[in-house]
Amino acid sequence: MKKHILVVPGDGIGQEVTVVGKAVLEKIAAKFGHDFTYDEALMGHVAIEATGDPLPAESLEKMRASDAILFGAVGHAKYDNDPTAKVRPEQGLLKMRKELGLFANLRPIKLFDELLGASSIKPEILKGVDILFFRELTGDVYFGKRERIDNGNTAYDTMIYSKYEVERIARKAFDAAMTRGKKLMSVDKANVLESSRLWREVVLEVAKDYPEVELEHQFIDAAAMLLIKDPKRFDVVVTGNIFGDILTDEASQIAGSMGMLASASVGESTGVYEPIHGSGHDIAGKGVANPMASVLSAALLLDISFGLKEESEAVISAIDSVLKAGYRTRDIADATTPANMILGTDAIGKEILDRI
Amino acid sequence: MKKHILVVPGDGIGQEVTVVGKAVLEKIAAKFGHDFTYDEALMGHVAIEATGDPLPAESLEKMRASDAILFGAVGHAKYDNDPTAKVRPEQGLLKMRKELGLFANLRPIKLFDELLGASSIKPEILKGVDILFFRELTGDVYFGKRERIDNGNTAYDTMIYSKYEVERIARKAFDAAMTRGKKLMSVDKANVLESSRLWREVVLEVAKDYPEVELEHQFIDAAAMLLIKDPKRFDVVVTGNIFGDILTDEASQIAGSMGMLASASVGESTGVYEPIHGSGHDIAGKGVANPMASVLSAALLLDISFGLKEESEAVISAIDSVLKAGYRTRDIADATTPANMILGTDAIGKEILDRI
Ligand SMILES: [Mg+2]
Ligand SMILES: [Mg+2]
Repeated sequence: MKKHILVVPGDGIGQEVTVVGKAVLEKIAAKFGHDFTYDEALMGHVAIEATGDPLPAESLEKMRASDAILFGAVGHAKYDNDPTAKVRPEQGLLKMRKELGLFANLRPIKLFDELLGASSIKPEILKGVDILFFRELTGDVYFGKRERIDNGNTAYDTMIYSKYEVERIARKAFDAAMTRGKKLMSVDKANVLESSRLWREVVLEVAKDYPEVELEHQFIDAAAMLLIKDPKRFDVVVTGNIFGDILTDEASQIAGSMGMLASASVGESTGVYEPIHGSGHDIAGKGVANPMASVLSAALLLDISFGLKEESEAVISAIDSVLKAGYRTRDIADATTPANMILGTDAIGKEILDRI
Repeated sequence: MKKHILVVPGDGIGQEVTVVGKAVLEKIAAKFGHDFTYDEALMGHVAIEATGDPLPAESLEKMRASDAILFGAVGHAKYDNDPTAKVRPEQGLLKMRKELGLFANLRPIKLFDELLGASSIKPEILKGVDILFFRELTGDVYFGKRERIDNGNTAYDTMIYSKYEVERIARKAFDAAMTRGKKLMSVDKANVLESSRLWREVVLEVAKDYPEVELEHQFIDAAAMLLIKDPKRFDVVVTGNIFGDILTDEASQIAGSMGMLASASVGESTGVYEPIHGSGHDIAGKGVANPMASVLSAALLLDISFGLKEESEAVISAIDSVLKAGYRTRDIADATTPANMILGTDAIGKEILDRI
């Protein structure tokens, strides 16, 4: 298979982990006889430093011209404590999602048995958890109108949804539910918010086309609670942008580490595959970042954008085997991990490559 | 001490648990020689059924005329699946908060040692957790303008904060931090939202008056994750209305059960004391609801509105003693609890009263 892949490392540990993700794609291509070509593009803080723009036109062009994008992360500590900064790395992320029409973010939360102990949640609560989140990605309060009014003394953002936006993500989630446990949980705040009431109306309407799927509604505050109390109750979940942002980060902790979780953003154009961890600027440059989420992103890319199931499973098996052999990165090690089994980014990357 | 207390049971299990909360106040008054008088008022679904209004003028008048309010819960299943209902129980709650100027919701998360095993989080992660949340209660997207536009095909809500709203809750949180560990975490989403950037600016400004307090900022998605990973990292937390709604419900699960958590809503006028659990319509009328959050609400009422520390501690000790004796309600029982030690609402209420 001939495919063109764009690597967008972005900021911080994004630079480190995508090196491993790309190496895995190269190894897969060699082993399975595919012809993958690669290019690279700037985004985030590194793009601001180089061009003043968090998503330069050249990067966007390369994105549109590729068959799939392996993405790292954006963000830098300097912006966190400077709320007045006009240009911000995250603007690049939001713009990419909008420009590529990436309205659906898929986040699988499936645990490797070897890592059940790494979570702060009891293993017996966790064992068997298998959740697939559908987070709406191009609407909601992250994209509505925002401004200062009243001489700068008041600020607002607009939490907004249109029916077609809810319908297209709801259909994707119902479709996925049909291929899994035929259960779907929709999360909103319909007891207070008008945008949530519209969300629920549309989900109820779409549900008519999926009579076999058992539909459940939860409020976001209750869902945040249930996710800790009884994560096995969740199967496919569909929710808006900000509620999905919060719930999936919370779910990542159920999984023990953000370093193990990949996500896919798909929609109208090229799909983007990325770890759910951020730029991790506290550990950037130290060579200790866990590259497995980037590797699992590569596996998702092979599966969803290229339909290469066997290749995707070969990647996941390689990670499973590395974990079974006892190798860990720092973030997923515990008190019982021998010091010599705790590896850095490159070393654990090599262990993964050796098993493909 | 002569005080007038208004009991507002509201809906569902609110009706059941406030009976116990009020009985505890009566027992305290008898034992410590106080003269407490009581009145009762309608709110929520029961008020809609009786008057058409979730918070009738008569109820509001009684609220203003009282020294403190012991509140139950509002809500009913029939509204959850009817997003088109114009009159809703929760409107009463929001109106009460606005009318009484209850801009600060205090939620202590402090665990009883006997219940550490009741959580899905590992006991070693939990032991020693002592968090005090300050949730802003009268602003944010729960009160901003909301409407349908575009022939009903689009709906929006407005997430809005003014500087004075952030400042007054920030000051309360900093004041509390000074009496505790001198640590404050402010939670926002300043990397995307303008209202959050205003929030952070004001918190940074107020911080100048509290040079001894160590201030930390977290984004809401990261905070939702950290709360599971390392709850001991949290001491005093200040955040907006919707983020606080989500985080405190999540934190309740860390505590093992919503049935053990009380909250205080204070501001410009009469303070309101209530469990953080809702109306629990799935278990309402069965006599199995855990009344301890209502009893702990009564303890908070004695402490905060009346300054009766000794009386407040007598209530908390009684609960501690009931738990040490091995009594549980269903929600906090586990596999090791003998069936005869699992009590209903009234029976465990009697055990508490007997120990005051
Ligand atoms: Mg996030
Ligand atoms: Mg809530």
